[in-house]
Formats: sequence, structure tokens, C-alpha cells
Amino acid sequence: MPEHITLYLAKNQTCPAAHRVVLALTETKADYTPYEIDLINKPEWFTPKVNPVGQVPAIAYGGPKVSPDEPSPESAKIAESLVLIEFVADLYPDCPIVPKDPVLRARMRYFIDAVATKYLPAYAGSLLHEQPFEGIWTAFDRIQTLLPADKTYAVSDDFTLADIAILPLLARMEIWLKNDVGRFKEGEGKKAYEYFASSDRFARLRKYYAACRDRESFKTTFDEELIAGEYIAQLTPLRVVA
Amino acid sequence: MPEHITLYLAKNQTCPAAHRVVLALTETKADYTPYEIDLINKPEWFTPKVNPVGQVPAIAYGGPKVSPDEPSPESAKIAESLVLIEFVADLYPDCPIVPKDPVLRARMRYFIDAVATKYLPAYAGSLLHEQPFEGIWTAFDRIQTLLPADKTYAVSDDFTLADIAILPLLARMEIWLKNDVGRFKEGEGKKAYEYFASSDRFARLRKYYAACRDRESFKTTFDEELIAGEYIAQLTPLRVVA
Repeated sequence: MPEHITLYLAKNQTCPAAHRVVLALTETKADYTPYEIDLINKPEWFTPKVNPVGQVPAIAYGGPKVSPDEPSPESAKIAESLVLIEFVADLYPDCPIVPKDPVLRARMRYFIDAVATKYLPAYAGSLLHEQPFEGIWTAFDRIQTLLPADKTYAVSDDFTLADIAILPLLARMEIWLKNDVGRFKEGEGKKAYEYFASSDRFARLRKYYAACRDRESFKTTFDEELIAGEYIAQLTPLRVVA
Repeated sequence: MPEHITLYLAKNQTCPAAHRVVLALTETKADYTPYEIDLINKPEWFTPKVNPVGQVPAIAYGGPKVSPDEPSPESAKIAESLVLIEFVADLYPDCPIVPKDPVLRARMRYFIDAVATKYLPAYAGSLLHEQPFEGIWTAFDRIQTLLPADKTYAVSDDFTLADIAILPLLARMEIWLKNDVGRFKEGEGKKAYEYFASSDRFARLRKYYAACRDRESFKTTFDEELIAGEYIAQLTPLRVVA
């Protein structure tokens, strides 16, 4: 029986990394205490007591039952979303979010590596650094080659850490493109969204993404309106003025 | 009982990524067939039949017993060194290269993440892209904060995937610094080596590195003279002429 988990995460579901961990905790039906950290006014105790690099998401695991804002030195502190989702899966080894078969586990980790090293940099590049959307489309081409033709999810018909790694990014990208906010010119986000939503090039990825969005753990942990409101507020000022 | 493993790898032990996989296979006492791929004259069959992105190391796992240069479509093909070492560990779940305790597993993966995202880019930057050695030293500062004060290895007194992820890089860096070859001015490598080898700043890392080098699996899979010869031949032309 796993010990108690406190999950420190950013406010208002904006962070895709935190959403990964929430999905893993939801799929495993873990009992946990979420505690939102205001990153603009980060509480003084957070960095010294939870994560020396100051980032969320982070987990405090085990130790005495304490208030989340008074973390105990006796709990284990863990960070980095991809490490955290493996950790949650390790706490619940019977949950199929990690396959039993070593080959499928390897496919899962290879897919996660492609998300981390191909899609995420392109995603951040277009959202924040004026990089052309072509970087995202190229990453999607690559990711589509990894999706098995006859399976629902990225590795098999089970929803795994591979899906958990990419889904929060896809869902948030859809929001910032649809709402046309990010470090690009007005109208470019919407145009990119239409391309993603209609081009034959991404038919396989769209089918996969639709299956993922249909997952109960996603529907109960993703408030599109809330996130869209936050993104519009935070990202509109980044727009590139012609 | 795991099925048969063929490991495709670069010639002459030059590649740290391949060495990771060799260490995992050696620690688990796996039975495997190594097959060297000449990357300059890559055999035509390699990319279509083993790894669509053409890189080594890669593993063909299971399927019928075939010659390594005629890989069967029935074997599973797996690539990316950090995926491969987890795969090898998954084939031998009783081998302590992955701890049983979920918290220690998380520490192991957090350490590996620091190697992949902090040390490796700095390593490649100084070796190939004229970046100052300070990037490596900063990565070492970070990695030292992760080394437990009272344990032999990166996570515990067991040699794990965390050690396997970093050791091949440390050992090869020592070679290119000592031999003063890489994309830097003559003499700079030696100077950096002396700094690493004598500064109090890295005392903890040096102690850890010495323990890792003492590991039997390392000693039997690392031919310093062979690798130094290759590096001198390949990297001397990169030297920056003042």
C-alpha cells in the first residue's frame, strides 16, 4: 500500500507537465493531496523544502501526515514530470499504464523520448520563441510513424505513460492555436490550427488524439474553459506585432 | 528466460551510448551478439531493417536465429541508449541495476535526466561546438548535489542505470581532455583535465567516478588505448587553430 502523496503543481491547470502527473495519479486511482503553488509569488518554503530547483510539479511522498505548506524533511521529494509518472506507475505496478511486456515498455519509453526531444522543443519554440510551426508538423510526422496502425493508443490498446506524456501538450496546443495566442502574429495560430485540424497529413494523429481525449481520466482533469482563460490572459501580450 | 539479443553498435568502443548498453548487458550477464556497424560505410540493410533513423546502438530482440546482417522482420527492434538500458533491466528484473524501491527508482531516473539534459549537452558543446568548459563544470556542480554523501554510487551502494548513464561519458571525456583533442585550441583540453583532476570543486565527483571505474563490468568493456587511438585520429582535425 503506497504512502501518502502530496502533489505540488501550478495553478489553474495551465501546466502540461503537472497534467501528466495528475493523469497518472487518476489512472492509478491514487489517493493524493494536490497543492497549488503560485509561481509568481512562490511561497518561501517551497524551494528549500520541496524542490531545490524551485520547479513544479513535484511530489512529497511518505513521512508524517503534515500540512502541504509545512512539508516534512522525512518525506521523499521527487520532481520532473517524466520521472514522476514512472514513480506513480511504480507505486501501482498492477495498473496497466506501464505494460508488463519488456518490448512494449521499450516502445513506450521510445515514444516518450520522441515527445520530450522532438515535439516538446518544437511546441515551446512556436509558442514562445517565434519558431515556424513547421517544427511541430515535422515532429508530428515522426510521432505518427510510431503510432501502431491497429491500436487505440501509442503502444497498445491500453492507455500508458506514452499517452500521458503527449496528451497534455496536444490538448494545450489546441487551446493556444485556437485562441490565437503565443509568440506569433495575429491570425497565424488560427491558420495553423486549421491546418492541423483538416490536413490529411495528420489524419492518424487526429484519430489518436480523439481517442485520448475520450479517456475518462482526461475528461475529469481538463477544464478547457479555465485553461483558455488563463492562456488568453498570459499569452496575448506575447503576440508579435507586424 | 529472455530471447536472443543482437546489439548493433559503432566500431572501436568510441560511442558512449553503446557503452551504456554494453554495461547493462554485462551487469545482467545477458547472452548477446554484438555486431559492429561501420557508420562511414553503413551497410544498406541497416536503416530499413534495424533502425529507421539509422542510428546505433540498436537491439534486435527475439525472432528466429539469424545472422546479424540479415535481421528478421520478426524480431523487435529497439533504439536509444537510455531506452535500451531500461529494456535490458526489464529483461532481468532480479538484477539490482534497477532498485526495487520506487523512491530509489525515481532518484535513479532523476539522475539520468540530469545526465541527459545537463551534462550531455555541455559535453557535446565543449567537444564539438567550441563551447567553454564552464558548461561542463556547472553540470558537474549540479550532478554532485545529487550524489548521496554516504553511498558508493549515484543512488545507493548498488550500481544502477544512473551510473551506467554517466560513466561512459565521464570515461570518454577524460580521454579527449587528456589527449587534448576536440573543437578547442591546443592545450585547452589538458588545462581543463588538470582542473577537473585537481580542483576541490570536484572532489565528490572524482571519488564517485573512481568507484565506478573500479567496477568489473567497466574494466572488462573499456579499452582506453583503443579508444584514445580512435579519438586522436578522429578529433585531432577538429582542433581550433588560433
